[in-house]
Amino acid sequence: MELETSPLALPFPDMPDIEGVTLRVARARYKNWDRCDLTYAELAEGTALAGVFTKNVCCSTEVEMGREQVKAGKARALIVNAGNSNAFTGFRGREAVEQIMAQVAGHLGCAPSEVLVSSTGVIGVPLPKDKAEAGVAAALTAEPCSWEDAANTIGTTDTFAKGATTSAMLGDTRVTLNGFIKGSGMIAPDMATMLGYIFTDAAVTPAFLQQCLSAANEKSYSCITVDSDTSTSDTVLAFATGKAGNAPLSSFDSPGADAFMAALEDLCRQLAHLVVRDGEGAQKFISIDVSGAVSDESARRIGLAIANSPLVKTAIAGEDANWGRVVMAVGKAGEPADRDKLSIGFGGIWAAKDGLPLPDYDEAPVAKHLAGQEIDIAVDIGLGAGHATVWTCDLTHGYISINADYRS
Amino acid sequence: MELETSPLALPFPDMPDIEGVTLRVARARYKNWDRCDLTYAELAEGTALAGVFTKNVCCSTEVEMGREQVKAGKARALIVNAGNSNAFTGFRGREAVEQIMAQVAGHLGCAPSEVLVSSTGVIGVPLPKDKAEAGVAAALTAEPCSWEDAANTIGTTDTFAKGATTSAMLGDTRVTLNGFIKGSGMIAPDMATMLGYIFTDAAVTPAFLQQCLSAANEKSYSCITVDSDTSTSDTVLAFATGKAGNAPLSSFDSPGADAFMAALEDLCRQLAHLVVRDGEGAQKFISIDVSGAVSDESARRIGLAIANSPLVKTAIAGEDANWGRVVMAVGKAGEPADRDKLSIGFGGIWAAKDGLPLPDYDEAPVAKHLAGQEIDIAVDIGLGAGHATVWTCDLTHGYISINADYRS
Repeated sequence: MELETSPLALPFPDMPDIEGVTLRVARARYKNWDRCDLTYAELAEGTALAGVFTKNVCCSTEVEMGREQVKAGKARALIVNAGNSNAFTGFRGREAVEQIMAQVAGHLGCAPSEVLVSSTGVIGVPLPKDKAEAGVAAALTAEPCSWEDAANTIGTTDTFAKGATTSAMLGDTRVTLNGFIKGSGMIAPDMATMLGYIFTDAAVTPAFLQQCLSAANEKSYSCITVDSDTSTSDTVLAFATGKAGNAPLSSFDSPGADAFMAALEDLCRQLAHLVVRDGEGAQKFISIDVSGAVSDESARRIGLAIANSPLVKTAIAGEDANWGRVVMAVGKAGEPADRDKLSIGFGGIWAAKDGLPLPDYDEAPVAKHLAGQEIDIAVDIGLGAGHATVWTCDLTHGYISINADYRS
Repeated sequence: MELETSPLALPFPDMPDIEGVTLRVARARYKNWDRCDLTYAELAEGTALAGVFTKNVCCSTEVEMGREQVKAGKARALIVNAGNSNAFTGFRGREAVEQIMAQVAGHLGCAPSEVLVSSTGVIGVPLPKDKAEAGVAAALTAEPCSWEDAANTIGTTDTFAKGATTSAMLGDTRVTLNGFIKGSGMIAPDMATMLGYIFTDAAVTPAFLQQCLSAANEKSYSCITVDSDTSTSDTVLAFATGKAGNAPLSSFDSPGADAFMAALEDLCRQLAHLVVRDGEGAQKFISIDVSGAVSDESARRIGLAIANSPLVKTAIAGEDANWGRVVMAVGKAGEPADRDKLSIGFGGIWAAKDGLPLPDYDEAPVAKHLAGQEIDIAVDIGLGAGHATVWTCDLTHGYISINADYRS
């Protein structure tokens, strides 16, 4: 099935070089296709590593190993395989990953544990070792490529390349943060996965990089959903080469740490939004702002209950200001809420306040808002100061076609 | 939008009378339609009452009041309004319910608290008191009607009338259990709701009736899902008139209590299945059998994670034995599971065992099974003795059409 580019796609940005990061791609031909499907990022010595991973307990070998590698906090290389997720493949899958790590480590003269590996694509088929070996060999000696080439190469059923860039001033040193990401779609027997990679020339200790990435994750990747299904391979890694020459950031007391954190959060939010914009069948990008919850975490859970509700998502697809379905979703979230304190609005206009429909509610401007591509839903729980914003897309015939119709 | 009868519909069964239960229906015209939309069940003095209700915290007035009434355990009448759910209507909605209770209590000479009221349909609009009053007055004096008439009258977007009957021998007394139920669909601004009513001539104390209904609920209504969205009004009530003349059942030590419990469980399972069979857009009825979990409750949660996964449901719609999506759903359930001990099968044939695809797996008989209307998915977690079966339907274009396309 040929997928059309998402109507919510954004153009790939101009992304500057990052000292200490060299990108290369190659054809491993994991599937019967003629495209680059193996990405290799070479990282300068001393690069700090952090990562966040899927909470799915049936995770892939790559995720299991990545969790261990992140503890050591050092990286020299990243390999991303597209077309085969290597998930649910037992010891044979693990052998393939270990082979790639050894091959790259031999080339760079580093420890195998400093080589990160991710895979995305078909599950239940061990990553073919011969194809991996040839692909890695080709990548190690390939000409350096652009950020957009790398972003395209990690993609599977993505309909557009997803990248973002930002920068921050640490004292009088400007540091750059680049990232690319894939995710959104799955066409059986492929399993969708969100894989994201962030590169910066800032000097940051591994522990503080992890602290920043975990915090940014809470407000970005953990606040998006397409269909409530959690991949077994979701991974976001951050690499800091330290080549910008700033005094290393080691805690929020380090000068410039706040600016770095703000930039990282911005980058992660941009990347997370791009995944939603490529959500399967997405026609509308939905922001759900929840305030007045008993805590930020409670607000996030309520937001995700709304974002995952098929009835809310189909209502938005139908351009229907169906606040009753939002009430229902709030109530099923399992978080503190009081029907008679609840307020719900669309596009900046309240439809219901304190548990009752507003008598002077004017649906015309709301209908106009819902006819657009960017939809805002506001929910005030009325109980506390907890706040969160989550993002999702609508649920359309396109989702069904992508996931159910491929056999017809 | 005119809905076609579900392809999974079953014919309405022959249902015997139950002594102490008289059914009547009337036209309250809660919507602009010409059909009966108010159901009245008159119950003999001494009828025991039990109930289970939605866990949605934004529940309707009817649910709040029902919870209180069930504590007293006595019922003389049931009124069901179809076309207006009276949810999210504040004090005005409550006044309408209290008016109905007083009107029926005045007619029967009973306490208002012995009159149960349920409502289903549009939300955010207080139940109109004048229509309710006229409708109730008409129902109180109407000719008695059939079980099928009552089952049709409580329906909203249901595509077929749903009823079930069974019986049990308590010593040498045969008792009958009848039930009818509605639920499955919602067309904005209507909100779907599952409302179920069970009537028996058995003599059962209210406390034991509640114990039995709660236990049966755990294996029936709590094990079905159409789209993971929980109505604010879900209600199942059980009424026991005691007219069969058996020695009253008061605990599992009472002779015949096991037989009664088995019959009630059977009836609840039949009724729950009927709701799934009328799931919006449903083309296939899916049974998911989870064994080997650490507990029965853990098995139920894993089963519901599978049953609620849009990717699993679309795979079944596409007749695709996509066991990878089942793995994913098991992993995201938040329950103990071990990828390398997991086994998954379709239609009695294992596709993967102990975390690996079976080398001699033959997809042909599985494909044939998936082409049918009744789909069996088996999952063995491999960790313990916990077991549960849950039921759902597939996710199809019909679901999107019903919930998103009505404006087009």
